[in-house]
Amino acid sequence: MCGIVGVHNHSEASNIAYLSLYAQQHRGQESAGIVSSRKGVFLQHKAMGHVADCFSRAVIAELAGSSAIGHVRYSTAGGSHIENAQPFVVNTAEGNLAIAHNGNLTNALALRKELEQQGSIFQSTMDSEVIMHLIAREREGSLVERISRALRRVEGAYSLVFLADDAMIAARDPWGFRPLVLGQLGESYIAASETCALDLIDATYLREIEPGEIVLFENGGMRSYKGALNGEGKKKQHCIFEYIYFARPDSHVFDRDVYPIRKGFGVQLAKEHPVEADMVVPVPDSGVPAAIGYSQESGIPFEMGLIRNHYVGRTFIEPKSEIRHFGVRIKLNPVREIIKDKRVIVIDDSIVRGTTSMKIVKMIRRAGAKEVHVRISSPPTAWPCFYGIDTPTRKELIAASQTIEEIREFITADSLGYLSHDGLYWFDKKGRREWFCDACFTGKYPVALTDNPEIEKAAREFINRKIIQ
Amino acid sequence: MCGIVGVHNHSEASNIAYLSLYAQQHRGQESAGIVSSRKGVFLQHKAMGHVADCFSRAVIAELAGSSAIGHVRYSTAGGSHIENAQPFVVNTAEGNLAIAHNGNLTNALALRKELEQQGSIFQSTMDSEVIMHLIAREREGSLVERISRALRRVEGAYSLVFLADDAMIAARDPWGFRPLVLGQLGESYIAASETCALDLIDATYLREIEPGEIVLFENGGMRSYKGALNGEGKKKQHCIFEYIYFARPDSHVFDRDVYPIRKGFGVQLAKEHPVEADMVVPVPDSGVPAAIGYSQESGIPFEMGLIRNHYVGRTFIEPKSEIRHFGVRIKLNPVREIIKDKRVIVIDDSIVRGTTSMKIVKMIRRAGAKEVHVRISSPPTAWPCFYGIDTPTRKELIAASQTIEEIREFITADSLGYLSHDGLYWFDKKGRREWFCDACFTGKYPVALTDNPEIEKAAREFINRKIIQ
Amino acid sequence: MCGIVGVHNHSEASNIAYLSLYAQQHRGQESAGIVSSRKGVFLQHKAMGHVADCFSRAVIAELAGSSAIGHVRYSTAGGSHIENAQPFVVNTAEGNLAIAHNGNLTNALALRKELEQQGSIFQSTMDSEVIMHLIAREREGSLVERISRALRRVEGAYSLVFLADDAMIAARDPWGFRPLVLGQLGESYIAASETCALDLIDATYLREIEPGEIVLFENGGMRSYKGALNGEGKKKQHCIFEYIYFARPDSHVFDRDVYPIRKGFGVQLAKEHPVEADMVVPVPDSGVPAAIGYSQESGIPFEMGLIRNHYVGRTFIEPKSEIRHFGVRIKLNPVREIIKDKRVIVIDDSIVRGTTSMKIVKMIRRAGAKEVHVRISSPPTAWPCFYGIDTPTRKELIAASQTIEEIREFITADSLGYLSHDGLYWFDKKGRREWFCDACFTGKYPVALTDNPEIEKAAREFINRKIIQ
Amino acid sequence: MCGIVGVHNHSEASNIAYLSLYAQQHRGQESAGIVSSRKGVFLQHKAMGHVADCFSRAVIAELAGSSAIGHVRYSTAGGSHIENAQPFVVNTAEGNLAIAHNGNLTNALALRKELEQQGSIFQSTMDSEVIMHLIAREREGSLVERISRALRRVEGAYSLVFLADDAMIAARDPWGFRPLVLGQLGESYIAASETCALDLIDATYLREIEPGEIVLFENGGMRSYKGALNGEGKKKQHCIFEYIYFARPDSHVFDRDVYPIRKGFGVQLAKEHPVEADMVVPVPDSGVPAAIGYSQESGIPFEMGLIRNHYVGRTFIEPKSEIRHFGVRIKLNPVREIIKDKRVIVIDDSIVRGTTSMKIVKMIRRAGAKEVHVRISSPPTAWPCFYGIDTPTRKELIAASQTIEEIREFITADSLGYLSHDGLYWFDKKGRREWFCDACFTGKYPVALTDNPEIEKAAREFINRKIIQ
Repeated sequence: MCGIVGVHNHSEASNIAYLSLYAQQHRGQESAGIVSSRKGVFLQHKAMGHVADCFSRAVIAELAGSSAIGHVRYSTAGGSHIENAQPFVVNTAEGNLAIAHNGNLTNALALRKELEQQGSIFQSTMDSEVIMHLIAREREGSLVERISRALRRVEGAYSLVFLADDAMIAARDPWGFRPLVLGQLGESYIAASETCALDLIDATYLREIEPGEIVLFENGGMRSYKGALNGEGKKKQHCIFEYIYFARPDSHVFDRDVYPIRKGFGVQLAKEHPVEADMVVPVPDSGVPAAIGYSQESGIPFEMGLIRNHYVGRTFIEPKSEIRHFGVRIKLNPVREIIKDKRVIVIDDSIVRGTTSMKIVKMIRRAGAKEVHVRISSPPTAWPCFYGIDTPTRKELIAASQTIEEIREFITADSLGYLSHDGLYWFDKKGRREWFCDACFTGKYPVALTDNPEIEKAAREFINRKIIQ
Repeated sequence: MCGIVGVHNHSEASNIAYLSLYAQQHRGQESAGIVSSRKGVFLQHKAMGHVADCFSRAVIAELAGSSAIGHVRYSTAGGSHIENAQPFVVNTAEGNLAIAHNGNLTNALALRKELEQQGSIFQSTMDSEVIMHLIAREREGSLVERISRALRRVEGAYSLVFLADDAMIAARDPWGFRPLVLGQLGESYIAASETCALDLIDATYLREIEPGEIVLFENGGMRSYKGALNGEGKKKQHCIFEYIYFARPDSHVFDRDVYPIRKGFGVQLAKEHPVEADMVVPVPDSGVPAAIGYSQESGIPFEMGLIRNHYVGRTFIEPKSEIRHFGVRIKLNPVREIIKDKRVIVIDDSIVRGTTSMKIVKMIRRAGAKEVHVRISSPPTAWPCFYGIDTPTRKELIAASQTIEEIREFITADSLGYLSHDGLYWFDKKGRREWFCDACFTGKYPVALTDNPEIEKAAREFINRKIIQ
Repeated sequence: MCGIVGVHNHSEASNIAYLSLYAQQHRGQESAGIVSSRKGVFLQHKAMGHVADCFSRAVIAELAGSSAIGHVRYSTAGGSHIENAQPFVVNTAEGNLAIAHNGNLTNALALRKELEQQGSIFQSTMDSEVIMHLIAREREGSLVERISRALRRVEGAYSLVFLADDAMIAARDPWGFRPLVLGQLGESYIAASETCALDLIDATYLREIEPGEIVLFENGGMRSYKGALNGEGKKKQHCIFEYIYFARPDSHVFDRDVYPIRKGFGVQLAKEHPVEADMVVPVPDSGVPAAIGYSQESGIPFEMGLIRNHYVGRTFIEPKSEIRHFGVRIKLNPVREIIKDKRVIVIDDSIVRGTTSMKIVKMIRRAGAKEVHVRISSPPTAWPCFYGIDTPTRKELIAASQTIEEIREFITADSLGYLSHDGLYWFDKKGRREWFCDACFTGKYPVALTDNPEIEKAAREFINRKIIQ
Repeated sequence: MCGIVGVHNHSEASNIAYLSLYAQQHRGQESAGIVSSRKGVFLQHKAMGHVADCFSRAVIAELAGSSAIGHVRYSTAGGSHIENAQPFVVNTAEGNLAIAHNGNLTNALALRKELEQQGSIFQSTMDSEVIMHLIAREREGSLVERISRALRRVEGAYSLVFLADDAMIAARDPWGFRPLVLGQLGESYIAASETCALDLIDATYLREIEPGEIVLFENGGMRSYKGALNGEGKKKQHCIFEYIYFARPDSHVFDRDVYPIRKGFGVQLAKEHPVEADMVVPVPDSGVPAAIGYSQESGIPFEMGLIRNHYVGRTFIEPKSEIRHFGVRIKLNPVREIIKDKRVIVIDDSIVRGTTSMKIVKMIRRAGAKEVHVRISSPPTAWPCFYGIDTPTRKELIAASQTIEEIREFITADSLGYLSHDGLYWFDKKGRREWFCDACFTGKYPVALTDNPEIEKAAREFINRKIIQ
């Protein structure tokens, strides 16, 4: 879960990159970085924290050059160190090369071991370093050819932008797990994870970069290599979670607008799990469009009954006994007056461990609600993601081991309803459900989990068992 | 526009103060500070920026002691310097004294000149320093008596918490311009600007500190001096803008809940200025409750058609010609798909200069809206505030010189409707409209503008003229 | 123990002030600050640490204006807080006023209590704040008159520079405890603690500012008010310790050059306490000139047998048992090869508690010295200073309670010799020994210790006793 | 020009490393870093600036583990970036490996190109990264064997410490260009550039690590591989400049004490270039021992006539016309009183470009000196160093193109004398002059300048020409 951007042929490339990262801040708050290229000299700045805190006017001014790539990184278990901040820059026989990566490889560990056996050294734990080694070892052909050959060796999710001495390159894995779009601003090209990055800088959205496509930006021009990374058995596998939670609602992702899809989840949910109640309350901000959909379909009034504190940042909380429930309170507070003595439907996008949902239910009940009905705008999350969404282990996923009734009891809700698989794909009118990866709900991992064979085996057994039953 | 907190008799007073400030971050993002008292030694930390950035676990740990007061400061024209950060600490003949102040005095300049003539020296431009001088010059009686005599000399808005060597004191001006509430957490007392600060720490809301009241917290106990600051011609003058915009919607302010009042503004607005349209879209976040009210009253669907970027922080923008409209774009982006070809009602809380509204209207129109109707959940803002809300000069207020039709034209809306004065007071069933200060709409300044006589004169002439007509 | 500077009528006043502070870094390493005045607006920057770390080119560039004053502060027991950093700036009825102070008042506490009784408030523990209050309370006459009347009320040591909206003022106490000199650079005037500050900026040394003199700098001109602060019983009392230790050896202080005086101490010491040895080794850097004098007088070779680490800064040392003697080792290391099997004379400027001397003696002995003879280039330090030198309490001064033989035993030296009182004044050919304050050796405090009566009483008893014996 | 340290088998390894770096601060002030190993996890901290500023108690506490290596880096032309700070850490097939390097390779560029052709990627411009790649590509044998084979491929100067998961290794090039010593502290071993690092922590000096030796520290024990890196034509080439300028005078380097050697240079200089004068004044601090030697040999009194400001740090100077000569003044100031009307002999260690010497001569003359005689305690520096001393290009070296008389004229001295080559080797009683590298004086580069063939050619021509003449 990261956001990337590449800007080609703009006199203020790093400033454009900065604003684009800023628009994609929701994709990663841990670190931010920009690398620009001025006449073959690479200039970079990376720091921990929010984009607005990492960069100052003076810093951006120093990142001169007409091309730049940038990255925001999500906080993951792997360790919050500046060493893991991107873009990642190296020198090779062919010159400088920088990379910004969104996604997660499934055979990085295996490739890394192989490279180490051949004498490669590593300075980080990032998948991107593996990719760079593979590219550097390709010694023949053009940059596009070398990148293409290298990327054909990796498996899993990758939306990438590269910066070379004289060129910029964008590439997307053949499954298209993560979004990557192309925009134009005057004579400049922009590649970014989400269209909201283009909107902020008033750029025109051209199209998605296709799964398996490599795009070369050079001398102000653009050249596409469609299918460069495709191959047998590689078909589209868009991450359904981008629609459910991750992308900004004003973005256009996988050729569809997010807001209407997310609102439709709420409409479906109202059809599948109706309940008599006085109001529909979203868990802000991600639950808002689905709650609006639920409200419009059910006719039950929508209310902003939970207020979110948007200044969370790196707040710390002392876990002393007198001060409890802070983990949730720090972010959310109920509007007591309107909840009191009411029957409340709470709309959230997913339940992971169940503890947060439990705290929210209890908080609403203590604010005086007579009934609390939880509706989730996606199916039960039962399998971890290995393609770039940060999820806990299967053990920690409550839906991996508990029935829906058990989950309801755990979160202390009066009723609980999840969106069905069919409801999830309400927007698909052409029977292309198989173009989406929903392994987190189904365990059907579309790309082999080379580095995690035990999970793959468990998922297969689970699926077979289900079929047999 | 600031937020304050005082915590008495808690083993982790500064930690409680920190969390309370955090909940009140919306009242001031420029600086934050906490002072604690440990056995007569005052410990303090003040810094520029958000609460979560100003304090670390280690800093809070050093602010030991069982009482603490804190402050968040809004960025005002007066200059963004650490010197103006609060709480403000001094030594006097009676020991240490710290103050945290929300509000604005109207005779601070006059008092300051008088004090300087008597040989007082000043180290800041804060009103609070004037108050401290006045208190120090009171040499007789108890601390409460001295504070009481000093405060009777100042005019204007003040909600205050003081920290002394052995006591904490809360005080509120006799007009009650700014909110100040009292809460309890086990054996501890908390005074804060808003109830959302009490909610975050799970404290119980006891009551408002009354206009003109002083409350002394000592040895774990509390003693009230109601009416201590009252006097002739001093009646309640609650700031109506706290309901319109400033307070958090989940707070309980001036003995009423904010959310239902704000939603009611939308209901009234729908009645006063109906229009045929396809959707009601709030300018987030402040416009949301009013938009819900408008939607429910009118039956026109509510949609979150503008998405707000919540990571704004100290973002800088390069004002180059190619990159336009950034001032608004950086915060808001329309959801194109749902706005396209639609007639949109936009709900905002107020129009100040008109430029932001104009940019929003244009942005929505460029996203494809067929019609854009603007509805404002308050009357035209025509007069500057001198009681603590940061407004521009009268010259800059568009409603001071333009008719509503001229404003509509300026912001390029298809129609424009402001809430009426009667609609504003929909919630007042007991004819107590005069308990509120609405000088920003009416020019009726309830407390003399000693330091700004020319504005007071202009307002008087304006009011007389209107009456004569 | 601080360093001050004032620059008048220079287009880069703050840059000149910065360089002057830098040259006076030895007078204070805890904090540094500069205030400049541009058309009546005061601009300031203060920070903890060394001058070179506190100021950057950008910071100095912001401190615009043609006059500036600066200050470096020594770390004292009073607490190392930014609140105590100088210059100290206030607003008064007559405008802005900033002060930079070197010295220590003996009646500050009494005056402060009196001011507090009259309602004054204090924001720091600095003597300078007392001075500012006194000035602000003088409401009649010119700035010079008001400052003059205020300063006549304070007792003790003060070398001061003030910055007002249109003028700069330098003032020195009537006893002349601390140095203060006047220089010229083109059409600019510079007042500084030491002449080394003038040398660095290539300014011409004009003269000392006389004890009791006030100098007004205005509109590029200079006007002297000699004797403005004089009065009955106030005669010169130059601090002899500036010659012994504090001033830089290349400075010209109290109308004499420091280096030759300090070297002369060594010459006298050689005459008074000769000993057969192989080399004379200074404790660097302060002991160097005296050691050269001792060597030249005795004919015993001078060697730099102790090497000082000049990068000490804010080094911390973990006091674990395995790693010992670090307090001294961190600063000094013996040159083993030349010390080994030799009889070494070590020259230091003073012995305070005795622990450092003991560690040095032991270190030299462990490096192989056959004999270690300690020679101190001043008499025994038996009384604390109240005029601006940071000394420990009388209890901690080893010479307050121990005989010279006892001290020798404590520091484990083979022999110990202190410079005699007569030897100390070798440079005085005109019988003006009484123009110097040597209370630290004699207990004869020339200015009443109003805030410390018990020490004054003890000293008087001690002196009487000695006379009777 | 850097300083390194390795600590093995100490419960506070990183604290010991910190203090050792601190003692070696004179070897590099640009950046400092420490890496420790705790159960196979590497912990590191690197920062720009002085050791005391880079590390805090808290930072050291986090660098847990019983082994640690550290590095201080000198500011070189290559760019002052944190990316070039050491130690440098990588992951290889055999686990973690960190390196700290003092010296400069002469075939790094050639090796780098070769490695890049084989697909290696580089993240810095450091020679050390080349070494790490070579080691990682050695896939057979023990760590010592792999390091040994890798180092046999590099040419030039390297004193190294490595940290591996379970071991620490020290290695020194077969020529022994840079110092590297071995010490013991209880059951711990310490490898450091200079013995002053051992002194500070009270460790016992055991011996030099020999040229060509590798030492393995494992499980609290030590194992030596003498001659591991030796080979045909590789004989000792100790850097003579360590004696002249670089090492601390209290260190024991190349099996000799620095101070007596440096003092001897002064004795020789007095014999070779006597002159009638009133005093001998060193350019502090490096000129002090030679000046003492000159004084003792000549009988002319030694005086500390130039005072050095030891707080230089990162001082910036505004180069305005009114404020001149600052580049020198900022560091040095003459003691006017003793220099005035005197004939002064100034002792410095070397002349590089000549501009600093010129400024010093002029400064002394303006302080009133009648005559200024410059004596340099080394031969003319005519050739750049490629083995680790940061010198300018040959073009900039004044002695490369000017005769001694021309240099004297340039620096405006009354007379100028350089130490002769024979005088330089006064300490060598066994005819082992060829064990020292003095290429900077002679152009006889003992190790091929693979990456700088044009300089090597020029030097060879120069030497041949001289022989023919």
